Amino acid sequence: MRFVKGHGTGNDFVLLPDPEDRLRLDAAQVAALCDRRTGIGADGLLRVVRRGADGWFMDYRNADGSVAEMCGNGVRVYARYLVHAGLAEPGRLLLGTRAGEREVIVPADPAADITVDMGPPALGGDPATVLLDGRAHPATPVSMGNPHAVALVGSLADLDLTRAPTVTPATAFPDGVNVELVELVGPAHLRMRVHERGVGETSSCGTGACAAAVAARSWLGDAQAPEEWLVDLPGGRLRVQVQADRVLLSGPAVLVAEGELLS
Amino acid sequence: MRFVKGHGTGNDFVLLPDPEDRLRLDAAQVAALCDRRTGIGADGLLRVVRRGADGWFMDYRNADGSVAEMCGNGVRVYARYLVHAGLAEPGRLLLGTRAGEREVIVPADPAADITVDMGPPALGGDPATVLLDGRAHPATPVSMGNPHAVALVGSLADLDLTRAPTVTPATAFPDGVNVELVELVGPAHLRMRVHERGVGETSSCGTGACAAAVAARSWLGDAQAPEEWLVDLPGGRLRVQVQADRVLLSGPAVLVAEGELLS
Repeated sequence: MRFVKGHGTGNDFVLLPDPEDRLRLDAAQVAALCDRRTGIGADGLLRVVRRGADGWFMDYRNADGSVAEMCGNGVRVYARYLVHAGLAEPGRLLLGTRAGEREVIVPADPAADITVDMGPPALGGDPATVLLDGRAHPATPVSMGNPHAVALVGSLADLDLTRAPTVTPATAFPDGVNVELVELVGPAHLRMRVHERGVGETSSCGTGACAAAVAARSWLGDAQAPEEWLVDLPGGRLRVQVQADRVLLSGPAVLVAEGELLS
Repeated sequence: MRFVKGHGTGNDFVLLPDPEDRLRLDAAQVAALCDRRTGIGADGLLRVVRRGADGWFMDYRNADGSVAEMCGNGVRVYARYLVHAGLAEPGRLLLGTRAGEREVIVPADPAADITVDMGPPALGGDPATVLLDGRAHPATPVSMGNPHAVALVGSLADLDLTRAPTVTPATAFPDGVNVELVELVGPAHLRMRVHERGVGETSSCGTGACAAAVAARSWLGDAQAPEEWLVDLPGGRLRVQVQADRVLLSGPAVLVAEGELLS
């Protein structure tokens, strides 16, 4: 079985080219491939499946084998692979995901950032509160298809994210919530850390970066706020453009290795 | 650059075939290859270098790029690779390491355990004490070339090894010490957890398994104690044979993938 390993801002993936949709991988097999010691190791698996005459579908699974809808870092790595492998031309791609069709822009330069349309944001509901290290931070709920609570903090340096922050009211997030802690670095520049629900602190989260920029614009007053933001995460820098009806996410997508499974 | 990834009881390695000894890898390059998110990911790197007419040298580096002498799990994976790649015949191999020449037995069956001569053990000096979770456990000092303190405990289940246990007297281990916590499962069967100096708790440690069996024999009275021990670690099972002047370590060695670096 052939594989490729790649990452975007430290969020890493095993890609399995399966154009004819022949692989049937159960959760245990996905988890074995994503095991960082006895497998290839990754945050998730991207199965590359042909759809129609010249389209592609991203079958995305989490490292535990569960099915997931979309991943802003994964879809960039996926698109980079398609162009690298000669399965798509650089430029504008339309990729199928479980969250619907996604537009991705892949420059011809293999080192250039890749941009993906992350769909419309939804600034949602009443303010929430993030409790962390005994302090209460007011937080803005944002949906990017998945739920986020974005809190402004004075400094990220000493936050303890080894345990999940408590977010209240719990009733506002019946399915749990991703928590972004955000520091304003400049007028259009954020630094953030993220605690992903069910995972823990991660080095990067694409939807979290988008949610953070959307929330930051609301804090500054949307009409005056810049549309384009730099977002620095522990794993690297992303760029977020908040447009009228969609959010564009740009960032690196690096293919690290390709090869064959031996066991 | 070609690579292979493999593991022994969850202790994993990137192998770089470099028969002509052409690669010059500085610590930063090794660390980049061993990075689990932006590289291949491994506990260490094994450069495969030809030595003389039909010999091989294992250039072993830790994941941080520092040079290391020997690794009981790594040398088995290294030997498996040589046979897999057709660079050596199954049977008895003599492999060069920084700790000297090591005899390795590789069965023809690629799924069979591989055995390595880990050299002579040294039961050393006065008893030590391992302090863990507020309890003091008497510990036996053993050298397998590197220093170990082996403590017998009633149960491994609830030990907190997120921080290094304190070992006293500190003067007995001027270069630090690996700590093995050992549970007697049967008359020739141990279960253990290990805290490696400078690393933290690991899923497996070859010299630690050997040290544990040597210490357990001393507790039972060497003359009556069995020579051959099963040692269960979090990452799997090893077999240790304590002979008059050497310790043999047997265990799995699995090649997971092979391929080419892309960046």
